Amino acid sequence: MTYCVGMLLDDGMVFVSDSRTNAGVDRVASFQKMHVFQQTGKRVFVLLTSGNLSLSQSVVALLHEGLGTRDPKRDLYAAKTMFAAARIVGGAMRETYNSEGEALKQHNVDFNIALIFGGQIKGSAPGLYQLYDAGNFVAATEDTPYFQVGEVKYGKPVLDRVITRRTSLVHAAKAALISFDSTMRSNVSVGPPIDVAIYRRDAQKIDFRRRLGENDPYLIQIRKLWGEALLRTFTDVIPDPDWKL
Amino acid sequence: MTYCVGMLLDDGMVFVSDSRTNAGVDRVASFQKMHVFQQTGKRVFVLLTSGNLSLSQSVVALLHEGLGTRDPKRDLYAAKTMFAAARIVGGAMRETYNSEGEALKQHNVDFNIALIFGGQIKGSAPGLYQLYDAGNFVAATEDTPYFQVGEVKYGKPVLDRVITRRTSLVHAAKAALISFDSTMRSNVSVGPPIDVAIYRRDAQKIDFRRRLGENDPYLIQIRKLWGEALLRTFTDVIPDPDWKL
Repeated sequence: MTYCVGMLLDDGMVFVSDSRTNAGVDRVASFQKMHVFQQTGKRVFVLLTSGNLSLSQSVVALLHEGLGTRDPKRDLYAAKTMFAAARIVGGAMRETYNSEGEALKQHNVDFNIALIFGGQIKGSAPGLYQLYDAGNFVAATEDTPYFQVGEVKYGKPVLDRVITRRTSLVHAAKAALISFDSTMRSNVSVGPPIDVAIYRRDAQKIDFRRRLGENDPYLIQIRKLWGEALLRTFTDVIPDPDWKL
Repeated sequence: MTYCVGMLLDDGMVFVSDSRTNAGVDRVASFQKMHVFQQTGKRVFVLLTSGNLSLSQSVVALLHEGLGTRDPKRDLYAAKTMFAAARIVGGAMRETYNSEGEALKQHNVDFNIALIFGGQIKGSAPGLYQLYDAGNFVAATEDTPYFQVGEVKYGKPVLDRVITRRTSLVHAAKAALISFDSTMRSNVSVGPPIDVAIYRRDAQKIDFRRRLGENDPYLIQIRKLWGEALLRTFTDVIPDPDWKL
């Protein structure tokens, strides 16, 4: 499985993804699910992938093939708006479906892919999108500043409580990593290394990018302090019910 | 959807279930998912149901029909062991499949049902089981003291951190309600009233049973204190990453 989060904030964007893939428990491997397309000073796009790895790799390969072609339907570097860029990504999903979908059906394999795509083109506002199997997509808004794909449920309660458009980039990254910690604790199909990319609005380049391994001190600190604080809250903050047992 | 938790502890058992059912967003209703079968002083069983409501209601009806028949394949009150009782529940699921499965298939409806079944028969140890669509089941053990069915993921991180076989009944109930709070906050398909049943080992009757409505003071207290503590932990306990942004 997979877990990826993308956030669109007033100050910029935060992207976080895990690296574990599995096709059954005896085929567990590590693949990066974060892909950056960047023309420094002009535009930057980040793509987070989940679903069938062969399909997401095909989408990424098609996007790379399109770069520099000046074809408005294929070239992310020729897109004039974030909406147009998201349509190019959706188009690569549809092209993948056209080439792979029928063969997958013959083997009863679902065409299963979900993407988070965000970025900014100089002169226009940043945009963040979630793309579905069919290549259709929705945009993040004031009310819904973040998207998750993959194993989304374990880590959602903490994000729901913390993230608004006004959350700072560093706090958003912190919340995302706590969300990953909760997910990794409860689900073995999500695992490190964790890729983090932070984009400051109007920078037109990724300011910060880091890969956090299993023994990353900050991940270890989160795991320890968050777990201890939850237990302390459970024991000391929430009163026991006053039921007569 | 649904959320139910059953826990098997050294001191006894805790059962908690929500009451929301939905068939699409315009068919939301309230149905109790906790069913108690009790011969005070002799045996007590609790069944928590999730999945297709027509199927789980059929299983419950068949179990009620079996009571008092002395048929060892149908009568929970004739079961000599918890294992035999769980087989009776699995048998009711199979009988339901035999009568409903084919017709559901014609309408492309999955035979979807998952149950938690626990209890104690005087003179033998308490037992807790999770039963799957096919009527097969697994028993809770020292390593896995609790089962969840329905919307299980949002509320799992807190249970994973708190619950062991040695957890007291009152703490287990508290943890379950916090788990329900996290689930209800992130998923509208799970909702109150919340049914709670607490069984003290060797009592052969349910010691405590309560239905907590939306405005139950203890649920409100959990919602407020847990949310505040999570935010405080996020802000004050977990340091920001020392990354140069």
